[in-house]
Amino acid sequence: MTSGHQDAAGQPPKLLDIPIGITATGTRRETDSMGAVEVPADRYWGAQTQRSLIHFSIGDDRMPKAVYHAYGYVKKAAALVNGREGRLPGWKADLIARVADEVISGSLDDHFPLYVWQTGSGTQSNMNVNEVISNRAIQLVGGTLGSKTPVHPNDHVNMGQSSNDTFPTAMHIAAVREIREHMLPKVRDLQHAVEAKSRVWWDIVKIGRTHLEDAVPLSVGQEWSGYAAQVSDAVDRIEATLPGLYELAVGGTAVGTGLNAPEGFGAQVTQEIARLAGYPFTTASNSFAAQGSLDAMVAASAGLRALAVPLMKIANDIRWLASGPRCGISELALPANEPGSSIMPGKVNPTQCEAMLMVCIQVLAEDSAIAFAGTQGNFELNAMRPVIINNFLHSARILGDAGEKLRTFCIEGAELHRQQIDDYLSRSLMLVTALSPEIGYDKASRIAHKADDEGTTLREAALATGYITAQDFDRIVDPRKMVHLTASSA
Amino acid sequence: MTSGHQDAAGQPPKLLDIPIGITATGTRRETDSMGAVEVPADRYWGAQTQRSLIHFSIGDDRMPKAVYHAYGYVKKAAALVNGREGRLPGWKADLIARVADEVISGSLDDHFPLYVWQTGSGTQSNMNVNEVISNRAIQLVGGTLGSKTPVHPNDHVNMGQSSNDTFPTAMHIAAVREIREHMLPKVRDLQHAVEAKSRVWWDIVKIGRTHLEDAVPLSVGQEWSGYAAQVSDAVDRIEATLPGLYELAVGGTAVGTGLNAPEGFGAQVTQEIARLAGYPFTTASNSFAAQGSLDAMVAASAGLRALAVPLMKIANDIRWLASGPRCGISELALPANEPGSSIMPGKVNPTQCEAMLMVCIQVLAEDSAIAFAGTQGNFELNAMRPVIINNFLHSARILGDAGEKLRTFCIEGAELHRQQIDDYLSRSLMLVTALSPEIGYDKASRIAHKADDEGTTLREAALATGYITAQDFDRIVDPRKMVHLTASSA
Amino acid sequence: MTSGHQDAAGQPPKLLDIPIGITATGTRRETDSMGAVEVPADRYWGAQTQRSLIHFSIGDDRMPKAVYHAYGYVKKAAALVNGREGRLPGWKADLIARVADEVISGSLDDHFPLYVWQTGSGTQSNMNVNEVISNRAIQLVGGTLGSKTPVHPNDHVNMGQSSNDTFPTAMHIAAVREIREHMLPKVRDLQHAVEAKSRVWWDIVKIGRTHLEDAVPLSVGQEWSGYAAQVSDAVDRIEATLPGLYELAVGGTAVGTGLNAPEGFGAQVTQEIARLAGYPFTTASNSFAAQGSLDAMVAASAGLRALAVPLMKIANDIRWLASGPRCGISELALPANEPGSSIMPGKVNPTQCEAMLMVCIQVLAEDSAIAFAGTQGNFELNAMRPVIINNFLHSARILGDAGEKLRTFCIEGAELHRQQIDDYLSRSLMLVTALSPEIGYDKASRIAHKADDEGTTLREAALATGYITAQDFDRIVDPRKMVHLTASSA
Amino acid sequence: MTSGHQDAAGQPPKLLDIPIGITATGTRRETDSMGAVEVPADRYWGAQTQRSLIHFSIGDDRMPKAVYHAYGYVKKAAALVNGREGRLPGWKADLIARVADEVISGSLDDHFPLYVWQTGSGTQSNMNVNEVISNRAIQLVGGTLGSKTPVHPNDHVNMGQSSNDTFPTAMHIAAVREIREHMLPKVRDLQHAVEAKSRVWWDIVKIGRTHLEDAVPLSVGQEWSGYAAQVSDAVDRIEATLPGLYELAVGGTAVGTGLNAPEGFGAQVTQEIARLAGYPFTTASNSFAAQGSLDAMVAASAGLRALAVPLMKIANDIRWLASGPRCGISELALPANEPGSSIMPGKVNPTQCEAMLMVCIQVLAEDSAIAFAGTQGNFELNAMRPVIINNFLHSARILGDAGEKLRTFCIEGAELHRQQIDDYLSRSLMLVTALSPEIGYDKASRIAHKADDEGTTLREAALATGYITAQDFDRIVDPRKMVHLTASSA
Repeated sequence: MTSGHQDAAGQPPKLLDIPIGITATGTRRETDSMGAVEVPADRYWGAQTQRSLIHFSIGDDRMPKAVYHAYGYVKKAAALVNGREGRLPGWKADLIARVADEVISGSLDDHFPLYVWQTGSGTQSNMNVNEVISNRAIQLVGGTLGSKTPVHPNDHVNMGQSSNDTFPTAMHIAAVREIREHMLPKVRDLQHAVEAKSRVWWDIVKIGRTHLEDAVPLSVGQEWSGYAAQVSDAVDRIEATLPGLYELAVGGTAVGTGLNAPEGFGAQVTQEIARLAGYPFTTASNSFAAQGSLDAMVAASAGLRALAVPLMKIANDIRWLASGPRCGISELALPANEPGSSIMPGKVNPTQCEAMLMVCIQVLAEDSAIAFAGTQGNFELNAMRPVIINNFLHSARILGDAGEKLRTFCIEGAELHRQQIDDYLSRSLMLVTALSPEIGYDKASRIAHKADDEGTTLREAALATGYITAQDFDRIVDPRKMVHLTASSA
Repeated sequence: MTSGHQDAAGQPPKLLDIPIGITATGTRRETDSMGAVEVPADRYWGAQTQRSLIHFSIGDDRMPKAVYHAYGYVKKAAALVNGREGRLPGWKADLIARVADEVISGSLDDHFPLYVWQTGSGTQSNMNVNEVISNRAIQLVGGTLGSKTPVHPNDHVNMGQSSNDTFPTAMHIAAVREIREHMLPKVRDLQHAVEAKSRVWWDIVKIGRTHLEDAVPLSVGQEWSGYAAQVSDAVDRIEATLPGLYELAVGGTAVGTGLNAPEGFGAQVTQEIARLAGYPFTTASNSFAAQGSLDAMVAASAGLRALAVPLMKIANDIRWLASGPRCGISELALPANEPGSSIMPGKVNPTQCEAMLMVCIQVLAEDSAIAFAGTQGNFELNAMRPVIINNFLHSARILGDAGEKLRTFCIEGAELHRQQIDDYLSRSLMLVTALSPEIGYDKASRIAHKADDEGTTLREAALATGYITAQDFDRIVDPRKMVHLTASSA
Repeated sequence: MTSGHQDAAGQPPKLLDIPIGITATGTRRETDSMGAVEVPADRYWGAQTQRSLIHFSIGDDRMPKAVYHAYGYVKKAAALVNGREGRLPGWKADLIARVADEVISGSLDDHFPLYVWQTGSGTQSNMNVNEVISNRAIQLVGGTLGSKTPVHPNDHVNMGQSSNDTFPTAMHIAAVREIREHMLPKVRDLQHAVEAKSRVWWDIVKIGRTHLEDAVPLSVGQEWSGYAAQVSDAVDRIEATLPGLYELAVGGTAVGTGLNAPEGFGAQVTQEIARLAGYPFTTASNSFAAQGSLDAMVAASAGLRALAVPLMKIANDIRWLASGPRCGISELALPANEPGSSIMPGKVNPTQCEAMLMVCIQVLAEDSAIAFAGTQGNFELNAMRPVIINNFLHSARILGDAGEKLRTFCIEGAELHRQQIDDYLSRSLMLVTALSPEIGYDKASRIAHKADDEGTTLREAALATGYITAQDFDRIVDPRKMVHLTASSA
Repeated sequence: MTSGHQDAAGQPPKLLDIPIGITATGTRRETDSMGAVEVPADRYWGAQTQRSLIHFSIGDDRMPKAVYHAYGYVKKAAALVNGREGRLPGWKADLIARVADEVISGSLDDHFPLYVWQTGSGTQSNMNVNEVISNRAIQLVGGTLGSKTPVHPNDHVNMGQSSNDTFPTAMHIAAVREIREHMLPKVRDLQHAVEAKSRVWWDIVKIGRTHLEDAVPLSVGQEWSGYAAQVSDAVDRIEATLPGLYELAVGGTAVGTGLNAPEGFGAQVTQEIARLAGYPFTTASNSFAAQGSLDAMVAASAGLRALAVPLMKIANDIRWLASGPRCGISELALPANEPGSSIMPGKVNPTQCEAMLMVCIQVLAEDSAIAFAGTQGNFELNAMRPVIINNFLHSARILGDAGEKLRTFCIEGAELHRQQIDDYLSRSLMLVTALSPEIGYDKASRIAHKADDEGTTLREAALATGYITAQDFDRIVDPRKMVHLTASSA
């Protein structure tokens, strides 16, 4: 089955111990099916990468390096499978695998220069990987760069593959790694910090607020248990999107039929990727859907949004609770990390919350781009892949980072203004609610309005109406009883 | 030029005095190029309307009646032009014009039942108008409903027209009328109410807030002049989108070339519409752009958004300023229009603000639908017209209405809590800013931090540092001087 | 525990057999804690409903009836629990339950007139339900409308409840019912119709397309199996959001502490609702999150979006495959349901697809409104509830309906243009791909370019290059082999 | 008025000729009102910049350099005005102005490292500028870095300013420069390239398409004139947003009252900026609106969207018209810039169109972030500035660049497939439309259906029906007449 164009039989070449890098200067001639092109002599990439660089220098958005690292797993796994099955000589498979490890490690990052705004299939980034692995492998065996011998970018590095199945595969791998290795740990730390505050402040009773208006009491710990629960639920929602990402398209090749890939190739490569990357990847149940759509990415983005939505609420609550110091709500004191104003001396602002709010807005916007792009597939390919993976990885990254900063520089150091909290509680009229079951909603309402109109305390107004005795009032209108505190937080 | 299929010459029929309505019950057989179909006997519509009703009963969103009223102008104008030019006998042109007046007036609204979710060109709604005018005209001359004689829906009512040019024409007419006759008057009333508050409260000095934190003072009137200016700017932005809407596609017929419309027809019909509707409509400068895109609608929607964005900010400010009554900012007292809670007696909430916030969110979402739909045109037609006009008219309507309610039931009756405003002002530390030019930012900063740490007044802290004399402090730290009040509001 | 304001002990009143409806004309005086107001004499609603009607007539968007039906379950369940526990006399509990059944059935729909744009908590709609049940119950025992005796809207119908916990409860119930009883059945029918097409067309080989450009072959059935898989995946994603909706906030009352609700009340009511409605509802794990956020609704909306995204892709594919009939791709023939043009005779358009595209755009926009609103909660309440539930129910409804129409009037009657499909297949150059493993990518590429430049068939070009023999070419370049057809469809 | 803290009178220091850069290694101690902090010794920035770097390292999004360049104008203008009015000694004003020129030129870019996700007011970036100018100025006079003498970041560089007025000022300047100096020139070039194609192809008649279905003819030039008109209209819409951007907030200082800025300062600085930058900047008509909102930025973003919407339509049209080469529409041949597939040899894809589509989706998403952020202002400040300016500048940049690439690498080299265009035209049935005015819609419709059913030409079907003579048919059904070609293109 190893036909002439694939592999010359014979002695495996000797592997040289050459560190990453090309010392040449100027340019080098590289070729592809369209002809020759000059590339920088100190770079491994070939003609197709160079063509893309020329034709797509749009803004300064580069394809995230995480995509290339993920591609490293794909190329390594494919080479190992091809080697094992005899489609590649063992030494060639090993050579590709070795260079793929360099790709995975990030050591070759400087050789992946392409822009986000390129071909919608990601083919140019796939070819960038193929070309770099080819030339680096050639270098390691002392060959001629650009000769495609003995490792050809298409015939060997890309063997059994198409961009159409491998690029979404790399997208899923990169997304899983970003979520599980970067974002979720930071978000869980944030959750735990909020839970810790909830425990510490569990039995401090404060006035509740609905519609921004004074309502009945709850404890600070209860309030923060709500925040923690929101973050925890969001983590669950994110994790629920992972199984979709674990399904890999590899094996479908050009249109999902698996043309030019041997029987079982997709499953074997997937299994290898799972082993190498350490995640439970499986073969996509329907390869046509896996290549024609990016629905799993859209769903995963909804997971990120599921976190941004509560974080925006929580960051807003924190900055409002900390508003003041003397003309706001001022129940909460945030760490003063930096001077707040270039003109107003001594000003401290809830800047971590503001950064988080902006990050959340950005994540919602990027999620909308992902969903929009998700709708724009045609036939056997959704050619909106780069815009989707770029937004996804960016959103996950800034959400995780902003969560870490909010935790470290805002939440962990937050303190309560106990006096203010107590003052509000004693002042509020809405404690009247506790009287309702006793005297009815209508009479209770009259008491509240009377106190408001006359500027008195609730107790004064209640007793003045004669609806309730002082003894009953004091028994019933007890904020600590009203909050129904259980022993512990959520 | 009046060929046989168009008009039999001869005596015009006598016009009967029949009020709108058909007394028949059961169904009536109507036909179109695909054959016969039963329609409700008491409705004027024909076969194509009925087919659409059957095939598109999706949800309960109906094409807005304003689109049909706008179409009335198109049909009347076209008939008058066709009559004047001899392509229709005068009596037939007049008859169509007369029924078109009934359409414009809304009297035939019950005969326009179609759903929003239909053909993307709006053809079915155009045919609905054609069929209704045809049958109502036939009724008025004592003819046989469904006979298409003497007024044929395509050959006469639609003469020289296509849905492809007339539907966007009707969209523009409907949009202009909604903006200028409904929305803008309400928004200007709102602006004036805000300006009135700004004037009344012009010289009441209050603490400013940036980042939700206490800042330097300004007057309540200044703050509200900002709101008024935002609304006024938004009105300007909305008005700047009208010229785009004044450009009408009529005359381009099927693909913009004007096939089957006589030379000059578009310009003549446009002139007639302008005369009838009272707006300066002109012929679209490029008919291919006018039919292949809905860019002017997208731009007009950005105008609506330009209002929703500031209204959301203003409604938010108002509800926060009114938060409390005892545990919030509480500078503002809003009218108590209704009990606020089913469980908390005496609670009053900023419900008009909340309604406005929700309306603004809806408008932003509908604007995003319009922009998305605007991108999805293909070749000679953007087949996303119904979703665009439905969202546009809806957004304009709820923005105008919500503005009216906010004005009437919230802003006009709002009052200041003067004591609270004064208390905040005297308490704030940020008045220290006025010392900066005198003693420098760094020393001023130390004073503010000292007052904050020790819980003293700014004056006490300032004097304690020795950076400034009591006399200088009192001269410089004068809130009324700090706001730089001019004689009048914006 | 049944104190004076709640219930006079004594004989239960006789239940009269009065059908729904009030025959009075003019107005009736109703009161609430703010005083008296005139309401239409033939309506059950009271003062608070009327105040809302006056203050919030914004556009013509009414709170969806499904919310009231859902509220019927809440009121019935609460009454039954309160009766069982002795807080309400049994006859009163039964009376409320009976009227709640009328609410659930839709018979009282005319008495729920309120607008979407109202208080952000939904309190006014809760009070509308309370008032209507109160007066209808009073009518049934021969009492005086508006007397609140013997069934008081707050003290009895709303006993143990707040809008703050019951409105989100009703939202979840309404959302679950809409998804499971209306939308999902229609979507599954659609999925099955697509699967049926996939089976019927399983072995018809066609050219694949990537980047809109000719690619390697697949079978029509494979292509449609991808569509079916996308819909099936979306159904899974929607179902995965149901557990979040099954969590009900009821029991938390005003701010989540359960003030004024007896111990265990939330769990008991939830259990009752589960029994009555037939869904596995449970008590929200954190009541503060359940009332301060609407995160489960945001997640459920992402589920709807997860369906809209693939449906947009599928509808687009279908209309492109059906484009023509003579100047497009024209592989597919759609049913001709209606004439397509008012000016172009005989034109048939992919209108069902267009309706679906517009519906999908609308759903994406409404989803963005829901996410935005989800971020805007403050403290113990997200006061953006009406805009969220209105958009959610609307999106679910139009998606379901549009899916049903697409299935019935487009997909089920679709046919293939076999000749066109075969012509494309034989004409395409991309079959060259199969030669790559044999002769290498570079030579294969040269063959394809040669055929393209010279306008020849692939076979002619291949043989002319001498890279391959005719025998090998015919063995390898066999479209039927290239699609790797398995025995059955997805 | 020049009090002690501002300026020691006396001899101006000698200006040293020191190139940009600090040769020290390790760290340097810098201070602000919160104390001391170590900064990299080879950087000019001070304590506040360093604090921001530590607290806000979120992702890798840096505040765009264009914001700092714009800030250079602000600082220079303020210094010149302050010098002229005697608030700063002339030599100090000149020194600040000189360093500001270095900022404007980009030479100090390496000293502006801050992240986008920082304080919402942009204060940290303002302080970054103040600190860098201070230290660079100190270096130039041989002073001690970090000493704030003789040029203090707050008292001198920020004199009369606040971040609250200067950051939105810098945003507007940066936005104007990006639009006018980068984006619009590229967009106009694109427009001209489209217009050139329209002229070259003016009289080539092709089949039109509506609903993707064959319609009546138009010329290729007409079609492209529509594209050109869309781009031209978009340019007009962008330009219409510039006056809003020309209004600068500078002069309002902390909350809009102009506290600590001398009378007339804002106007003088604005005039100076206008002179230096070469744009007609004016003072914001209402300073409270200018600082409390970012409405002009939201409107300017709608301008960018107004371009993205038509570009998405045009890019889509182009790739569909170029689809094939043998199994698509294939009226257009695009330049083959690069191999299209890693697996399918010889494939060429419409990659420039795909890049543009993705850019347009990104721009729409970023526009939605800007609008959302625009709604989230509170009181005297919209603290969402960084997210707005970052998205705006990014959108403008990628739109301009993608437009340039589309023009250069796709449109200018596009060619027509004349044979295919002619074939379609002769094959289409919709030419029947021209018969309508002669024989009526219904008969014309019958002809079209007959031809479709029987697979004949339109002419054959028409003559077979006997509705029209061959002579009349040939006279009327003449595509070239049907397109109503005028002498020249748009």
